[in-house]
Amino acid sequence: MSRNRANLIRLFVEVPLAAETQVELPAEQAHYVANVMRRKPGDEALAFNGRDGEWLIRFDEIGKKRATASPVERTRAQTTGCDLHLLFAPLKRARIDYMAQKATEMGASLLRPVVTRRTQAERVKVDRLRANAVEAAEQCNLLFVPDVEEPQKLETLLSRWPGDRQILFCDEVLPDEGHRAPAAYLAGLADDVKTAPWAILIGPEGGFDAAERKLLHALDCAHPVPLGPRIMRADTAAVAAMALWQSVLGDWR
Amino acid sequence: MSRNRANLIRLFVEVPLAAETQVELPAEQAHYVANVMRRKPGDEALAFNGRDGEWLIRFDEIGKKRATASPVERTRAQTTGCDLHLLFAPLKRARIDYMAQKATEMGASLLRPVVTRRTQAERVKVDRLRANAVEAAEQCNLLFVPDVEEPQKLETLLSRWPGDRQILFCDEVLPDEGHRAPAAYLAGLADDVKTAPWAILIGPEGGFDAAERKLLHALDCAHPVPLGPRIMRADTAAVAAMALWQSVLGDWR
Repeated sequence: MSRNRANLIRLFVEVPLAAETQVELPAEQAHYVANVMRRKPGDEALAFNGRDGEWLIRFDEIGKKRATASPVERTRAQTTGCDLHLLFAPLKRARIDYMAQKATEMGASLLRPVVTRRTQAERVKVDRLRANAVEAAEQCNLLFVPDVEEPQKLETLLSRWPGDRQILFCDEVLPDEGHRAPAAYLAGLADDVKTAPWAILIGPEGGFDAAERKLLHALDCAHPVPLGPRIMRADTAAVAAMALWQSVLGDWR
Repeated sequence: MSRNRANLIRLFVEVPLAAETQVELPAEQAHYVANVMRRKPGDEALAFNGRDGEWLIRFDEIGKKRATASPVERTRAQTTGCDLHLLFAPLKRARIDYMAQKATEMGASLLRPVVTRRTQAERVKVDRLRANAVEAAEQCNLLFVPDVEEPQKLETLLSRWPGDRQILFCDEVLPDEGHRAPAAYLAGLADDVKTAPWAILIGPEGGFDAAERKLLHALDCAHPVPLGPRIMRADTAAVAAMALWQSVLGDWR
């Protein structure tokens, strides 16, 4: 294909992608394709579902509530992503949207809101987080969209925690341990810990309370590290912690 | 003082802070203090100017266009910040605001928009960037606000570049050099390079063009590194690159 694929729109789809099949797009995507992007039958796009790689697709029918397309050719093989969960206390609207977008770009495989004692109780719109993650993956040429799970209380989550998944716990207060350089600390862990699955846990504005910190410090698989001498907002800390993890333990190595 | 200082408002001021002086707040801050925060004469706040540490101040007069306060006691000594410049192609409104806020939290000492060939030509509101940096410093308990400089063309900037300031240049395309792990690369630099002043350069959406990349690759002080296998938006890349720099060369060590 001589055509410049960089200019094609990219769509995340739920259905399988394979040759000699047809893909049906739901109403919202049909609207986007028809009315926002003004595509016509015969036009091409790219599609991915997180499993079957990326495909060049060609639109067959484009209607108001439904569009269909045929996968033409696989343009990229599926790669395996990071096994990195991001757990974070819910934030207000623009900042939780941002968190979902940025976490997707940074390679998180799962996003889960956790309700801590200092979390300003607020309903979390899981669908909205999911939509933000999908949009980031579509725009940033990614082959994956992280799963988004329902909020859970931190204490419940920790009481059922699978011991092999390590937790990078961004702790602003490390009174007994003094200064701990986070990159050197992670690099110095035992090999089986370094290669284990990981989660990053970002606290609420105002931090974890004393009981929560105690619970976390008591877990063998939790690794409290400070992120430098400055206080960061939670959405900044999430990106910074993921960059730290990716550069020491993840796929930036 | 038994009072909980964590609940005091924090104000960035331009004037010196010292005992037995009086601080005059400009109209906009007077409005914020009087009408938004509803403070009265006798109430306390915290103030910092990036030079004299943080001071507890007590309001004397609070009027519509002017407020005065007296520094009472220095609450924190001034610390020296990072010597880290952030150069970035201008982005659209919400994302450039975000960039200025996050760069402040990550410890940048100077923010400078750079106009590259693929930058969507847009006027940069330097005052607005500055206001975002001030707000981030006030909210995040920081003692510094980064300087904000006028936009400059990348080519002009590089033609006058001081050779001792190193450039971490986030390069999505490193065809001739293959894979370069960014943390290991930075950690492996010579000591005089590692301790030199640094700048981080983030390109526009769409990346640098070939001529710009050639200019950068020709500079001895420029260090092209990829930030992992995923494409990130420019504002994400800025936070991620600063986290990388801070954890290997900066004050997170």
